[in-house]
Amino acid sequence: MGLFTKDIKTMEDMFLHGLQDIYYAEKQITKALPKMIEQATNRDLSAGLRAHLEETEKQIERLEKVFEKLGKTPKGVDCPAIDGLIKEADQTAAEVDDKSVLDAAIVGNAQAVEHYEIARYGTLIAWAEELGHDDVVRFLTTNLNEEKATNTKLNTIALRKGVNKKAVA
Amino acid sequence: MGLFTKDIKTMEDMFLHGLQDIYYAEKQITKALPKMIEQATNRDLSAGLRAHLEETEKQIERLEKVFEKLGKTPKGVDCPAIDGLIKEADQTAAEVDDKSVLDAAIVGNAQAVEHYEIARYGTLIAWAEELGHDDVVRFLTTNLNEEKATNTKLNTIALRKGVNKKAVA
Repeated sequence: MGLFTKDIKTMEDMFLHGLQDIYYAEKQITKALPKMIEQATNRDLSAGLRAHLEETEKQIERLEKVFEKLGKTPKGVDCPAIDGLIKEADQTAAEVDDKSVLDAAIVGNAQAVEHYEIARYGTLIAWAEELGHDDVVRFLTTNLNEEKATNTKLNTIALRKGVNKKAVA
Repeated sequence: MGLFTKDIKTMEDMFLHGLQDIYYAEKQITKALPKMIEQATNRDLSAGLRAHLEETEKQIERLEKVFEKLGKTPKGVDCPAIDGLIKEADQTAAEVDDKSVLDAAIVGNAQAVEHYEIARYGTLIAWAEELGHDDVVRFLTTNLNEEKATNTKLNTIALRKGVNKKAVA
């Protein structure tokens, strides 16, 4: 959809736009995660991010099924929000001069990305239900639940697995 | 802090950077909200956003107290994430050609912003606790709880107050 072209006329258009936004976002995340995995020093953190990269690839496939069920071709649309979130993670990584502090920063930035996705999937599920697209709700719900679980796992890595403690030491 | 200058050497530096990031973000939000309030058609939505604008101004004051307690001058730092979230909200608003659909989009975009803040305050509180800055935790916790309450209120506006239903009608 073009800028300022008033292409979004109905909730169906808006829902499709939202799907294209998260589809683009998930693809950008698969490009950003390998760098974060490489930067991470803590083993639990790099393993957690690696698992989430595999998960994200499956989430993209699930989104492709959603497009298919709606009779649409999977397509991304510019998403300045995810671009900004990834840019901020890159900038912080470039500024941090200590590996343990960088681990703590990576957890925080990954959680900001998870929260973005949690917000978007939550909205998309509500819209899908309102539009009667019951056949796509389960795909979106699976993705939402995975993002929530990843966010919880990142909390554990920061707090119980000692990433924050080591960063302060 | 400059780009690629490796200015963040300790967790104290990282915590201060995080505070500057959310301080900038809250200020950008006070600039973005009036436009969203003006665009909103649903009364509950515009009233909710107006209340959150007032709340955000108090959150900025609370952050200034946090800087003060740490012996630092309140200062913002570039935050591409919030810039991207606001840019995305602006772009969507420019593309939507129906007032009820725009209301639904505004709720979604406001929730994406709330989730960003929820992520950042959650991280900052964990870091403050690890660093032993117990005297600032309560200010950050009040802000976090307000963001969570706003997010819940937006859910109610979308679902129970009928914003989504009207957008589909």
